[in-house]
Amino acid sequence: MSQRGNESSAAALPPTGVYAVIFASTRPHDATDDYGDWSARMAELAREQPGFLGIESVRGEDGRGISVSYWASEADIAAWKAVAEHREAQRLGMKSFYSAFTVVVAKVERAYAFTREGGKRSG
Amino acid sequence: MSQRGNESSAAALPPTGVYAVIFASTRPHDATDDYGDWSARMAELAREQPGFLGIESVRGEDGRGISVSYWASEADIAAWKAVAEHREAQRLGMKSFYSAFTVVVAKVERAYAFTREGGKRSG
Repeated sequence: MSQRGNESSAAALPPTGVYAVIFASTRPHDATDDYGDWSARMAELAREQPGFLGIESVRGEDGRGISVSYWASEADIAAWKAVAEHREAQRLGMKSFYSAFTVVVAKVERAYAFTREGGKRSG
Repeated sequence: MSQRGNESSAAALPPTGVYAVIFASTRPHDATDDYGDWSARMAELAREQPGFLGIESVRGEDGRGISVSYWASEADIAAWKAVAEHREAQRLGMKSFYSAFTVVVAKVERAYAFTREGGKRSG
């Protein structure tokens, strides 16, 4: 799962029973903040947390973005949410980084992957 | 949940117990196909399926994309996967649209939303 954090996605698969945190957000059109730095720092910090299994993030030119991070347990998600630097990021998120967002927590049932070279495989 | 299909995301929340299908894909750098038409058509067709609850899709300039669709049941996901036109899209996806992708199916535990105007709310 550690490869999931790399730029090349679609490599590793989350196992059954772990948790996905689906974060869908919209950036304001006129944003002129230090979001990029914060975003990179949070991705880096998340990787250091207990129970972190991987993250994939995409943002489109229209300002909408989706990040999916994977965690071993609900307790790991709660602990990450409570990290001081992350709490400050959350505060800034609501204050300026995002005009809107949703967070969905879901438990992984199954997964499969496809690569042009390797074909299809199950997790 | 129907608003979720609109361009303005972050509005509706999936209820506990429904299913998220997290589709993370990478487009080839040199793609010159009719992916855009197929992608739009599949989003349209998905909306007509029984059990469809919403979809959010983002693709970045680097060719990586994440789509999350929500469904009422596993049977609804299986039925959508078996729709003839969707099967052809899946075939083209592996043949040319994507260099790699992962599909993760996860059951929603909880969700919350934030909007600048309305603050935070739970699902």
